[in-house]
Amino acid sequence: MTTTPVRLLIHGATGRMGQALLRLCREQDSGCEVVAAVARRVDARVVDGVPQFAAAELAGVPAFDVAIDFSLPEGFDAILSLCIARGAALVSGTTGLSDAQKAQLDTASTKIPAAWASNFSLGVAVLHELVARAATLLPGWDCDIVEAHHTRKLDAPSGTALTLGAAAQAGGAQPHYASIRAGDIVGEHLVQFAAAGERIELAHRASNRDIFARGALHVATRLRGRTPGSYRVAELL
Amino acid sequence: MTTTPVRLLIHGATGRMGQALLRLCREQDSGCEVVAAVARRVDARVVDGVPQFAAAELAGVPAFDVAIDFSLPEGFDAILSLCIARGAALVSGTTGLSDAQKAQLDTASTKIPAAWASNFSLGVAVLHELVARAATLLPGWDCDIVEAHHTRKLDAPSGTALTLGAAAQAGGAQPHYASIRAGDIVGEHLVQFAAAGERIELAHRASNRDIFARGALHVATRLRGRTPGSYRVAELL
Amino acid sequence: MTTTPVRLLIHGATGRMGQALLRLCREQDSGCEVVAAVARRVDARVVDGVPQFAAAELAGVPAFDVAIDFSLPEGFDAILSLCIARGAALVSGTTGLSDAQKAQLDTASTKIPAAWASNFSLGVAVLHELVARAATLLPGWDCDIVEAHHTRKLDAPSGTALTLGAAAQAGGAQPHYASIRAGDIVGEHLVQFAAAGERIELAHRASNRDIFARGALHVATRLRGRTPGSYRVAELL
Amino acid sequence: MTTTPVRLLIHGATGRMGQALLRLCREQDSGCEVVAAVARRVDARVVDGVPQFAAAELAGVPAFDVAIDFSLPEGFDAILSLCIARGAALVSGTTGLSDAQKAQLDTASTKIPAAWASNFSLGVAVLHELVARAATLLPGWDCDIVEAHHTRKLDAPSGTALTLGAAAQAGGAQPHYASIRAGDIVGEHLVQFAAAGERIELAHRASNRDIFARGALHVATRLRGRTPGSYRVAELL
Repeated sequence: MTTTPVRLLIHGATGRMGQALLRLCREQDSGCEVVAAVARRVDARVVDGVPQFAAAELAGVPAFDVAIDFSLPEGFDAILSLCIARGAALVSGTTGLSDAQKAQLDTASTKIPAAWASNFSLGVAVLHELVARAATLLPGWDCDIVEAHHTRKLDAPSGTALTLGAAAQAGGAQPHYASIRAGDIVGEHLVQFAAAGERIELAHRASNRDIFARGALHVATRLRGRTPGSYRVAELL
Repeated sequence: MTTTPVRLLIHGATGRMGQALLRLCREQDSGCEVVAAVARRVDARVVDGVPQFAAAELAGVPAFDVAIDFSLPEGFDAILSLCIARGAALVSGTTGLSDAQKAQLDTASTKIPAAWASNFSLGVAVLHELVARAATLLPGWDCDIVEAHHTRKLDAPSGTALTLGAAAQAGGAQPHYASIRAGDIVGEHLVQFAAAGERIELAHRASNRDIFARGALHVATRLRGRTPGSYRVAELL
Repeated sequence: MTTTPVRLLIHGATGRMGQALLRLCREQDSGCEVVAAVARRVDARVVDGVPQFAAAELAGVPAFDVAIDFSLPEGFDAILSLCIARGAALVSGTTGLSDAQKAQLDTASTKIPAAWASNFSLGVAVLHELVARAATLLPGWDCDIVEAHHTRKLDAPSGTALTLGAAAQAGGAQPHYASIRAGDIVGEHLVQFAAAGERIELAHRASNRDIFARGALHVATRLRGRTPGSYRVAELL
Repeated sequence: MTTTPVRLLIHGATGRMGQALLRLCREQDSGCEVVAAVARRVDARVVDGVPQFAAAELAGVPAFDVAIDFSLPEGFDAILSLCIARGAALVSGTTGLSDAQKAQLDTASTKIPAAWASNFSLGVAVLHELVARAATLLPGWDCDIVEAHHTRKLDAPSGTALTLGAAAQAGGAQPHYASIRAGDIVGEHLVQFAAAGERIELAHRASNRDIFARGALHVATRLRGRTPGSYRVAELL
């Protein structure tokens, strides 16, 4: 069976994630074809062979199935509007969205399939499921979340830690957080449940940033053609 | 609401687990009452106030709801027969059972509620559920199980490691095992799933042997009055 | 070769550490003999067969070689004065001393052998040496210290974490701290050094409080007969 | 102060380590200048701008200060002879040397400065020092070494684990080994010391292979101009 490649728009094409997405689509049999690479300014870093567009030219991009957006809050409204106008799906990992933008995304998900996540690695999506389950099965156990990242990461706790904490809280736990910023650690998250005489430790260690781009591509391929809605990565495994 | 205490028979009352069970029933509000402490030989270590019986006197014990058996394979047939004869539930952690004895236990579970486990800690029961789920969600990931115990433990891998491995295998993983024997480590089990660029680590650390006795008591209270069958600890959380 | 037992005064005999010291001296071949157990109030918890003294009776205790003090700051001056008056050594793990009391201890160490530590386990003493060495050998690496203790511990970071951090700092590192309070964790300390592409993790895990009492007894036996001075646990291994 | 760059010969220039060395010398201010890149066959992968030589042309390379050799045992004799003939230092990480070749290397170190190691990361060199020290300070503690590497690594335990084990053994410990092969793990080594009630864990985690090439370059810069001898990485930190 042959499958038509997923036609991708990459929004934020010159950022670290955008560059990784373009490289992976070029190198691997990803099932995706980049039809438009959009950046604030078109510059030399955008990969040869991919049609490039400046943010101001967004309206003129060709037909696409899914937009993958790793950009900045100030560009979010434009890409969301475009996806709705085109009936395309949206995969977004843009952080720092305002409450108003989050509300717009919720509204949009009644019209298009959308997946926003602070972390697109498949491993973190699985960890999320396991933490939710553990919190339900371990009422009354203490819950602590420790995350470690490279020294250039400024926010703490990480968005992923907070998302894991929300999963624990939904199961009845009251998580406490600790953050470490050291070396060039890609990203590590430990969720610990402790009671008298025993402990459970659930951890994810990322050693290569490509897992985030690979996960976003995986989500994009699973989102094409879905009914409108707001999807979690774990639902699309 | 007041609940009638669960009437317990402790089989193997002079062993390490038997002693812990007797102590916990005495000290804590366990909801259990020990009506008979059975050992090969009645000796001074059996706690005051608990009726004591030598193994040869087993037929004469008073009415009980659940037998908790941490003894040796040579005494297993007798306690299993007694439970069937009395219509009582059986909780057993006796290791080294023969295939014939395991078959007898299976047959018995059509007549009485029974729970056999290599590890009765609630944490390990939860880890078992999480490992099974992770293995299903992570097809193609490498699976490794590392366990550590005190130097007096002779068998390796531990029965708990093998049980966790079976859960992983049921989900499609092919676990590899490593064992460490050092110091007085009570028991640690790590199940690791690894793929390109990321890893998930699921671990349980026991720091106090009482968790095994507490778990067995918990299972006993949940097993009383159940329909006949073979129960896993995780089902009784 | 037979050695005369070290004659011990236990100051703070009804506290958790005092009780452990009394039990270990009774149970094991510790090379120590308790000649006086001192507590604020003499009560039933002090072990049979050991001469008991209330704090107010301190002046009347018999001859001793070493005082082991795990008490409170308000009793510290009295035991320090007594050791100087008797020419006995002092082993102290009392926390919360004032700056004035610390200065008195320094002065006293010109007259008697003294060892104060926030943690008397041999493992932590060794970790302290290793951290100091690592910090010297790894200039420019990021240094983070994570400690975990039971939920009843109120101070954070732990005194041991701060002592390890001081060792790292003496070697040129700038440690950051994180604390976890969960379950009944006896005490865990992790010192991590991180650079681009690699990390070193140095950790100590305590699973039984007796290691602190055993370490204090070890230090006491090594301190008897030393020349006056301020000794670190690591020097007395 | 300006320093003349160290003139390097890279032996095994088309291998993974050779390529990393060439890239780092090109990208970074390494204090090194590659004057000859030697490979069995000269091919396109050798970087532009570096003089290339086939193994058969080894005698004709220009003057160099240090040869860095990450090749195969069959090419080792030739590069060792060349270093002796030229009075140049040798840094080698070639594994699988025969006993005869190891003896030749020992003999050569009376004439030239030489450093052979199974692992050139600075972190592992420091871990080696710490393990040796810990083993001396912890007589009678159990010692276990666990190492984890990617699934393409065929030998187990790793050469680094065996070297760490030798350091522990020299201090009086009797190490036991366990090996994990999973995912694309670059390399992790854990040395654990355990006694009753406590444990010390000393670990190194490599997340980027470049640390090995950077370490070899560091050793090369420190080896130039030394008196003849056999040097360990830790001596050259």
